[in-house]
Amino acid sequence: MGSAARIPVTVLGATGVVGQRFVARLVQHPWFRIEHLAASERSVGRAYAEACTWQLPGETGGRHANESHAGCGARTLVAATPEAAFAPVVFSALDSGPARDIEPAFAAAGAVVFSNASAFRMDPVVPLLVPEVNAAHLALLDTQRVRSGGRGGIVCNPNCTATVLTLALAPLHRAFGVQTVMMTSMQAVSGAGWPGVSSLDILGNVIPYIRDEEEKVPEETARMLGTLRDGAVVPADLTLSAACHRVPVLDGHTEAVSVRLRGDPSPEAVAECLAEFRGEPQELSLPSAPERPVYVHTAPDRPQVRRDVQAGGGMSVHVGRVRRCPVLGIKFVVMGHNAERGAAGASLLNAELAHARGLLDA
Amino acid sequence: MGSAARIPVTVLGATGVVGQRFVARLVQHPWFRIEHLAASERSVGRAYAEACTWQLPGETGGRHANESHAGCGARTLVAATPEAAFAPVVFSALDSGPARDIEPAFAAAGAVVFSNASAFRMDPVVPLLVPEVNAAHLALLDTQRVRSGGRGGIVCNPNCTATVLTLALAPLHRAFGVQTVMMTSMQAVSGAGWPGVSSLDILGNVIPYIRDEEEKVPEETARMLGTLRDGAVVPADLTLSAACHRVPVLDGHTEAVSVRLRGDPSPEAVAECLAEFRGEPQELSLPSAPERPVYVHTAPDRPQVRRDVQAGGGMSVHVGRVRRCPVLGIKFVVMGHNAERGAAGASLLNAELAHARGLLDA
Amino acid sequence: MGSAARIPVTVLGATGVVGQRFVARLVQHPWFRIEHLAASERSVGRAYAEACTWQLPGETGGRHANESHAGCGARTLVAATPEAAFAPVVFSALDSGPARDIEPAFAAAGAVVFSNASAFRMDPVVPLLVPEVNAAHLALLDTQRVRSGGRGGIVCNPNCTATVLTLALAPLHRAFGVQTVMMTSMQAVSGAGWPGVSSLDILGNVIPYIRDEEEKVPEETARMLGTLRDGAVVPADLTLSAACHRVPVLDGHTEAVSVRLRGDPSPEAVAECLAEFRGEPQELSLPSAPERPVYVHTAPDRPQVRRDVQAGGGMSVHVGRVRRCPVLGIKFVVMGHNAERGAAGASLLNAELAHARGLLDA
Amino acid sequence: MGSAARIPVTVLGATGVVGQRFVARLVQHPWFRIEHLAASERSVGRAYAEACTWQLPGETGGRHANESHAGCGARTLVAATPEAAFAPVVFSALDSGPARDIEPAFAAAGAVVFSNASAFRMDPVVPLLVPEVNAAHLALLDTQRVRSGGRGGIVCNPNCTATVLTLALAPLHRAFGVQTVMMTSMQAVSGAGWPGVSSLDILGNVIPYIRDEEEKVPEETARMLGTLRDGAVVPADLTLSAACHRVPVLDGHTEAVSVRLRGDPSPEAVAECLAEFRGEPQELSLPSAPERPVYVHTAPDRPQVRRDVQAGGGMSVHVGRVRRCPVLGIKFVVMGHNAERGAAGASLLNAELAHARGLLDA
Repeated sequence: MGSAARIPVTVLGATGVVGQRFVARLVQHPWFRIEHLAASERSVGRAYAEACTWQLPGETGGRHANESHAGCGARTLVAATPEAAFAPVVFSALDSGPARDIEPAFAAAGAVVFSNASAFRMDPVVPLLVPEVNAAHLALLDTQRVRSGGRGGIVCNPNCTATVLTLALAPLHRAFGVQTVMMTSMQAVSGAGWPGVSSLDILGNVIPYIRDEEEKVPEETARMLGTLRDGAVVPADLTLSAACHRVPVLDGHTEAVSVRLRGDPSPEAVAECLAEFRGEPQELSLPSAPERPVYVHTAPDRPQVRRDVQAGGGMSVHVGRVRRCPVLGIKFVVMGHNAERGAAGASLLNAELAHARGLLDA
Repeated sequence: MGSAARIPVTVLGATGVVGQRFVARLVQHPWFRIEHLAASERSVGRAYAEACTWQLPGETGGRHANESHAGCGARTLVAATPEAAFAPVVFSALDSGPARDIEPAFAAAGAVVFSNASAFRMDPVVPLLVPEVNAAHLALLDTQRVRSGGRGGIVCNPNCTATVLTLALAPLHRAFGVQTVMMTSMQAVSGAGWPGVSSLDILGNVIPYIRDEEEKVPEETARMLGTLRDGAVVPADLTLSAACHRVPVLDGHTEAVSVRLRGDPSPEAVAECLAEFRGEPQELSLPSAPERPVYVHTAPDRPQVRRDVQAGGGMSVHVGRVRRCPVLGIKFVVMGHNAERGAAGASLLNAELAHARGLLDA
Repeated sequence: MGSAARIPVTVLGATGVVGQRFVARLVQHPWFRIEHLAASERSVGRAYAEACTWQLPGETGGRHANESHAGCGARTLVAATPEAAFAPVVFSALDSGPARDIEPAFAAAGAVVFSNASAFRMDPVVPLLVPEVNAAHLALLDTQRVRSGGRGGIVCNPNCTATVLTLALAPLHRAFGVQTVMMTSMQAVSGAGWPGVSSLDILGNVIPYIRDEEEKVPEETARMLGTLRDGAVVPADLTLSAACHRVPVLDGHTEAVSVRLRGDPSPEAVAECLAEFRGEPQELSLPSAPERPVYVHTAPDRPQVRRDVQAGGGMSVHVGRVRRCPVLGIKFVVMGHNAERGAAGASLLNAELAHARGLLDA
Repeated sequence: MGSAARIPVTVLGATGVVGQRFVARLVQHPWFRIEHLAASERSVGRAYAEACTWQLPGETGGRHANESHAGCGARTLVAATPEAAFAPVVFSALDSGPARDIEPAFAAAGAVVFSNASAFRMDPVVPLLVPEVNAAHLALLDTQRVRSGGRGGIVCNPNCTATVLTLALAPLHRAFGVQTVMMTSMQAVSGAGWPGVSSLDILGNVIPYIRDEEEKVPEETARMLGTLRDGAVVPADLTLSAACHRVPVLDGHTEAVSVRLRGDPSPEAVAECLAEFRGEPQELSLPSAPERPVYVHTAPDRPQVRRDVQAGGGMSVHVGRVRRCPVLGIKFVVMGHNAERGAAGASLLNAELAHARGLLDA
């Protein structure tokens, strides 16, 4: 698809940690091209490269040394309103507060908003989507369109911690049925954005609390593993307990998981089920889809977040140490990239699925 | 008790991370005085300050700036044999391998060995002792003495991770009865000694594996919470699942715990039970006993290992976030100093208990 | 001195990183007692323990476990105005902006303000004081009093990086004369306050820039090493080049220093000069004075900030590796506690000097 | 060049940190193909993937997820002798001790050894080579060949800290002439190999000492900037003082540099000279050559090691903050990848230069 034919998109909240990852992924995307970068009022009118504390390798705006493409550091930031920043596809890296007003405004103007914000995740007509897990839920976009009579709508990706967990649970839920889950997380600082976590708080420390996280994980996980029935999602019937911690790691959440599965399968059967798992993004060969959504490690001390998080562009989750749990039957560790698979890459993959299904056509 | 009257002691493995903490605690102890510092062959004959990479604040050997006492940096290291290093009380910071031969040799020579090594922890006649938890098990020392016909014996402190956990479980076991435990640890690098964990492995990383740790924690915990009956310990009847991780923290293990208790008490009842817990060390006012063995935090984001681990000389464990667990009933986080409460301070407190009971008298 | 007889003091900016250290030092100070804790408007009326994210060991307000004194977590914060918060002695942990108005207001009301802010450090009539270095400059307080006709005044402690450097240069300046200095700093994150440096910026990183720092160090150092002549400070005639870096260290600035001294003394002579250095705080045995203001290490790899920074309550600076520099003659490393010797402890020592000289009497 | 035509090479010390980087670079190299992986005796006969604690992203042996090539994790390790491991080109990641015997053995057998070891760096007939800096010194390889009458020889890359510094000094030396240099380093832990620096030593710490480093930097730098005259290198006539520190950074050395240049050029002239610098690797478009050997940053707080070290495959050095130094005239910060530009990538670039000049032909 030539540059002219690529679908114009807007990034909302382009200067933040997740917004930057949207930009870095979009500057060379085969299907989408950046039309607008939108930011909060105090940044409007400034060049992206000036308004932004770039967190990623390479230069601000996604250009890398020795690359021929231009990046978008020179772009002027516009206001986050449909008037100033409309495009048929919108990626939202907004915080939940601003998202509550801005995302519906873009949807009402006819845009499909792929959002990383939590504002509408539990809205009954909004798909809370991980394409490998619950691609069928995308049908809720039609429900939104029918209601509004327009082309617009909102599609959410889940909380990063829930995403990593759910990618490991989904194959097991399909194959066996998940009944009970205990999850203890060790989460990276990038999950809190920039400036986010103070270095005074986290250097050499573990903080055993992340606001709202232990509530979001169970409800979002149950919704994603749930079934679409009569135009509504019936959450999966499982019990989930989450304990969330911040650790001095840059990118990537590690989660220690114990799970009770129907039929009490062996660790070998569980590992095989996870390793063989493929979903619709793999069948459709979506541009951001990893070859293997769940990468199963056999080394006794892997996955390790610093060493494994970037594999597959940060879009695989990594499972290791599948073993017996004396309490729930099976335990393992799962690790994934909170800011890619759990945020920017997630919404981009959602948009790719929608496009592959013809839902973004003019 | 004047210096002359203090009981002479030997430190085995004096140059290592735990050995150093024994030294630092002993240089000003009111009841004990260092008679011998023993080390491996290649260090014998060298001054302690030269043979040792001191890990603690102050000068090698436990002297602090502006303190009047001398420390023991100038002492000459001796061989770890009863011939070279006998004293009636011995503190062992040996690795498990050497401990297997050396500790019984000292016991046979008439010494009471207070050991941090794992070699004899599960030996039926060796007390695996945390004085607040199972002071009654110290009676096994008599069993050893009767068998050998001598004054010697071995008393072990448990694995550091098990110690921290058990101090939080013991009050609950007494008050309610512990049935099921899930524990996910985030452990400090000092738990692996020096040089121990390579910086290349742990900087910005989480390692989801610690050799043998997930096996030791359940068996040692059940033993400590068990009952002495007819001269043998009957382990507590509980199911415990442990998942152990190394994190880039210097000192102090953080453990996320879920627990099923008989009678399903409320979080408030659990917190109160923990906060009011006192044991024999507190009743006897042992020199190394913390005022509160379990310190219950009310701030939503505490305990934090870097900020709380030193409180009470590292001898308290810290509990926070006592709340409902949808799976097992109660969850909380507990944190304690692996190298003090979980190692050197632990064996010292064991020795203090033995002395207070008159078991170390000539 | 009984509690009643102690001098009442106010802490301005009590909730910040430096303010907390003032509080922790003052709760048990033999000469001073806290009368008011003042904070910004949004904290006024709240309890100190609630308004404050406590950074130090122990409980908010300076109480440690098992201590009998009360701490001041329960105190109500008052406004930072003389009307609400007057005391004859004031410790200021304000940022430079607010300090510009608030400190003179307290001075005008008759208080002697001991300030850690940079606002008035280069004011010709304000002593920029390190008691071991330039106790004579305190005479400028009289100049202020004569001008105002009142009892009030302002006394500043220097920038933390300059303080650590100057404590090492002062003995050499006295003994030999300092001509040229090159200083490269590796500074702790606590120097930027809380939340200060984002963990996303500093984990596993070095930031080669600290705003204004390379300008402050030369001018403040030259002023402190200067001479009081005819009621004004004549700065020392030396050339100083500073390069400042932030590193992932919690507390304590490490500085690599090369220096050209008159007479080209040997490393041994330099080390001896530093080790023997004592100043007026040592002669007067001021409560916060370390026994040795400059502690000279002989181990080849010391001082190390994490291991040595707390020695002497953080009030000593540590010098090591005194050796030949092929460019300037002598090089060494110096390390000191930015938030104690370089901030809260600094101003407290200044106040102790003033009190010992009778300048704070009613 | 097809796989068949590629030059077979041996990697000595293949399991270490630098050896792994050789492997990762060679598995897909256009000119070279791995013939032998050699290791110490206890690893001989084991598969590479088993004998090696892989430090790099992807799987052991250089295969990345989703890549079609095979990596070399399944290769069997052979002994580090010419009999077992001969190839016409050898890359040595040996420690200095073993290198002293093994490298000459391979050279005597007719191999050209490109070595990262320090053993022969100061040997008068061994080129100490950075291709952008002193490509002419490669002529010493002919001297070796004439002496031995064979095809073999040894070519060294310098110490990592010296390499980073010299790449920044070389353009200035050519354009102006370098007279005096002060360099303070903040070095990554990977420079010490694996396990290398203990996490207990470096977490939250700065170690102001690296053995032999302050001696190597001046002598190697002067040699590289020197001139080949009558078959011998005349070192550059400059005075250099180095102060070396270890910091908790994974990869990449940061160096604060002050320099006195002939003619006292402005910071702007210095920055322009560095930015425009190109060398023979760029002219020849060698496969491992970065487009810009010195990348000059204009942001006030860059380069930052964690964010910039990977740019250009780790083969560029990064300069920032070029400014006036009151002592020596110019100061700046330079940062480079110790294990790529300073080790594996360095020797590989040396081999590419030799090959491009026809020195490796059969």
